[in-house]
Amino acid sequence: MDRAATTPIMRGEAQPRLAGYKDAMTELFLEDFAVGQRFISDTRAVTADEIKTFAASFDPQPFHTDEVAAKASFFRGLAASGWHTAGITMSLLVRSGMPIAGGLIGAGGEIEWPRAVRPGDVLQVESEVLAVVPSRSRPERGMITVKSVTKNQNGDVVQVLTSKMLVWKRS
Amino acid sequence: MDRAATTPIMRGEAQPRLAGYKDAMTELFLEDFAVGQRFISDTRAVTADEIKTFAASFDPQPFHTDEVAAKASFFRGLAASGWHTAGITMSLLVRSGMPIAGGLIGAGGEIEWPRAVRPGDVLQVESEVLAVVPSRSRPERGMITVKSVTKNQNGDVVQVLTSKMLVWKRS
Repeated sequence: MDRAATTPIMRGEAQPRLAGYKDAMTELFLEDFAVGQRFISDTRAVTADEIKTFAASFDPQPFHTDEVAAKASFFRGLAASGWHTAGITMSLLVRSGMPIAGGLIGAGGEIEWPRAVRPGDVLQVESEVLAVVPSRSRPERGMITVKSVTKNQNGDVVQVLTSKMLVWKRS
Repeated sequence: MDRAATTPIMRGEAQPRLAGYKDAMTELFLEDFAVGQRFISDTRAVTADEIKTFAASFDPQPFHTDEVAAKASFFRGLAASGWHTAGITMSLLVRSGMPIAGGLIGAGGEIEWPRAVRPGDVLQVESEVLAVVPSRSRPERGMITVKSVTKNQNGDVVQVLTSKMLVWKRS
């Protein structure tokens, strides 16, 4: 099977990428994945209001909630919570980044935030398949390891997430 | 110095834990941390509405957004996004879990979600210091490695986060 035919959002494809992949794109099963495959998401902009709203619920620290206090902080200005960056990354993966059949179900992973996300940043996620491992005990499923690099509009890396995701077999 | 005197929210202390530690508790610098210290947070309840609201913005998949669709899914019912669990954990750490001077600034870490968070769950975070490492190049700071285990009201582990956090020296 030509894998490109099953992964129309792979980097380098000329097809338009729609916001909702379910309408336009094939959903992928374990048999469709291979080490080295790359996927690129749509973009999502981040506003100061969104940064502050997220932080109020989930990371209420002055450098995430208040521009003036943030200026005097380690971040030298308002910065998004790393968990907000993670959430935005997830939304990009779900909506456009990686069309796994049955959804994106992560068991966990490693996460790094080399640089803060700032108001006005526009984020995009590039993902690469690092491993494809069928389950030994459960023949209907397997796990893939995916490295998802989130960048801002300048190409700066704001997050690196290496996650293990559950994927179903087609058969 | 008696470390217990500087870490009044350590497990086993009889003092009341206030929701906002800044009023009541000493803020901790690198010199105050030691391997094996434990901290326990307040609790936070999770509602179905919160699960769906978070998911709509950050993880829009049917098992996080719709009770009926969730019943037919892998999760067999509405489940919180792992990133929502991470955000709740962070809010508990910030408000009550670990009073680091200058705030909780994470560089990254490892995360696992052994079990889903469900509507009505009440979460609490227990943290343990695994490492305390002064910076070689920057004498004013260091990093601590902290394992934060988030449990539900039944004691089931819903998240394990091992994170590296920036901590300032007192001097």
